[in-house]
Amino acid sequence: MPRNGAPTRERILDAAERLVIDNGYAATSVDRVIAESRTSKGSFFHHFASKDDLARALVERYAAADITHLYAAIAQVVADTDDPAERVIEFVRVFEEGADDLMSAQSSCLYVSVLTERELVDRGTSSQITAAIVAWREAIADLLRAALPPDSDLDAEALADHVFVTFEGAFILCRATGDPGHMRRQLGALRRLFEVLLVQGAA
Amino acid sequence: MPRNGAPTRERILDAAERLVIDNGYAATSVDRVIAESRTSKGSFFHHFASKDDLARALVERYAAADITHLYAAIAQVVADTDDPAERVIEFVRVFEEGADDLMSAQSSCLYVSVLTERELVDRGTSSQITAAIVAWREAIADLLRAALPPDSDLDAEALADHVFVTFEGAFILCRATGDPGHMRRQLGALRRLFEVLLVQGAA
Repeated sequence: MPRNGAPTRERILDAAERLVIDNGYAATSVDRVIAESRTSKGSFFHHFASKDDLARALVERYAAADITHLYAAIAQVVADTDDPAERVIEFVRVFEEGADDLMSAQSSCLYVSVLTERELVDRGTSSQITAAIVAWREAIADLLRAALPPDSDLDAEALADHVFVTFEGAFILCRATGDPGHMRRQLGALRRLFEVLLVQGAA
Repeated sequence: MPRNGAPTRERILDAAERLVIDNGYAATSVDRVIAESRTSKGSFFHHFASKDDLARALVERYAAADITHLYAAIAQVVADTDDPAERVIEFVRVFEEGADDLMSAQSSCLYVSVLTERELVDRGTSSQITAAIVAWREAIADLLRAALPPDSDLDAEALADHVFVTFEGAFILCRATGDPGHMRRQLGALRRLFEVLLVQGAA
């Protein structure tokens, strides 16, 4: 057992995730992952057949955690209030309030690093990202449809995707400016827009 | 002169921009840029001292074009209408209507590729991205402040940044799903949110 007690595979994934989020996939060598996870080449290739196999395992783990966060937030807002508009606003607020913790835990989003390399995407690494995007879209669109008037001409799926878009765009803004506070401010701006739409506005 | 008539430096930048946007910076070798731009190693290193020098030239050209698009749109909406709310909405509509053309010209955004590699950012490649972000923020925040009530509690700079965030997040969504139509739909969703905020809503 390694000194920190984490099983080797998880320790490799932890180091690789941090490196790939920081510098991208192509710029992250297997040698560096091995060095930072304090393992050996033999141990690495015991757990992962190739670097692309590592990429798939990273995306699988990250997307599963992403979907867990989604359903935890949905369960929380459904338990907290029966008001459909409040549920949408509260949903965004959950992530707004967690934004500073998120940005101290990671410097950007693994999806950005993986998607930046189209040849990696073409080798089949993105299907679980797409599945996560669809899960967020469907869950949020359900919340939005319940909160919008039946005759609304708004595209609930595009508005639902706008939550994912706000996360990913804010990760880029944080990285560009070096200011992780933009995540909280951007989720706050989205919450205010949803408040105007669903509470103050005429939707 | 090359057969297509473009000066060599521009031809190298065109090929490099396409490759870096498609696959990221680390995954783009100088050899591949040379091959795709039909030039030679000698010619490449006559124009660029190093790969990082190429990255800086790419960002410089891309950010300059980005700022040109910004001020062209501002000039257009200021000429088109005196109504402050209409100016904001029309500004987003200009880009919404150009979204399909944008997405047929490029598969994502150069900023995403460059920012994904933090070690590249740390070597000084991102200052012109930051300058472009600030130019967009200030110009759009001016439009927003004129359109919001004086007692509005909304953060005009965060809302202005939300335009950049929508672009960057939508690039990620398009890449993940393989559907470039998301750019138009996301800019459309943002326009509708601004319409509710500035025209229908109580701001």
